[in-house]
Amino acid sequence: MNAECRLRSAEFKYKIEHSEIRIPKSAFERGGSVIEIDFKKGDGLIPVIIQDAFTHEVLMLGYMNRESWEKTLETKRATFWSRSRGKLWAKGETSGHVQEVKEIYLDCDGDTLLVKVNQTGGAACHTGFRSCFHHRHEKGEWKIEGERIFDPKEVYGE
Amino acid sequence: MNAECRLRSAEFKYKIEHSEIRIPKSAFERGGSVIEIDFKKGDGLIPVIIQDAFTHEVLMLGYMNRESWEKTLETKRATFWSRSRGKLWAKGETSGHVQEVKEIYLDCDGDTLLVKVNQTGGAACHTGFRSCFHHRHEKGEWKIEGERIFDPKEVYGE
Repeated sequence: MNAECRLRSAEFKYKIEHSEIRIPKSAFERGGSVIEIDFKKGDGLIPVIIQDAFTHEVLMLGYMNRESWEKTLETKRATFWSRSRGKLWAKGETSGHVQEVKEIYLDCDGDTLLVKVNQTGGAACHTGFRSCFHHRHEKGEWKIEGERIFDPKEVYGE
Repeated sequence: MNAECRLRSAEFKYKIEHSEIRIPKSAFERGGSVIEIDFKKGDGLIPVIIQDAFTHEVLMLGYMNRESWEKTLETKRATFWSRSRGKLWAKGETSGHVQEVKEIYLDCDGDTLLVKVNQTGGAACHTGFRSCFHHRHEKGEWKIEGERIFDPKEVYGE
């Protein structure tokens, strides 16, 4: 926050405290930022980047609606909206490889989340790879990089 | 790749080499993966996670259509489709803070890209912060974390 911004913010807080202006109880009023998650832009869904909190690897991208966002906060485990299955999807509900939420960040536009997690089971991808991003672009082709941590057949069955 | 998968892949290659099956010249045939970018799922747009290749910080999420993807490959600098402006957007075209592409990964479904970049100018966010993800969730509120690297007014004008 630069000096001018701090000044404006202080002035704003003063006016609220002295009832010169009245706004509904908001995050800003309580000392936070005015930003909120914007679920409207993506028709109720927001893309969520999942990053390993320890290795900093990007593991996957999922989507949350308001319900899965609230479920994520409540359970402290990443819960998504599955676009293909059209229902809530608690990550790890079948495999047991849940994602324990460590930190959550919202971007400048309020339309993308970054969630840092502890990936239990060591692999985020349903194919058994550590990260869903295991196809590396090389000379115009996608080469598989990395080894499988688990065999999907053993975890999900045939 | 597990043993069975390796076996199937070897059998498949054998059949191609011995002309038992014919498929058009593909990435798989040339030793790569069968995966391709799926631009259809997102109406021609694919979400692209930008990660700092050196610090591993997640810097931003942008969107690419086929044209901006090809431009990215050609220029080796991240080029997006700006949804708000409805046009191609070569990152850094105004600020000079271009993103030099170091590595590109595609996810298991072919519908999300991860691009590792060298962020010139030190900041990816148009607000002057290093990362667009500078709002940290804390006790139900979004708190600004980190310092501004540049003053947006100096870079973009009023």
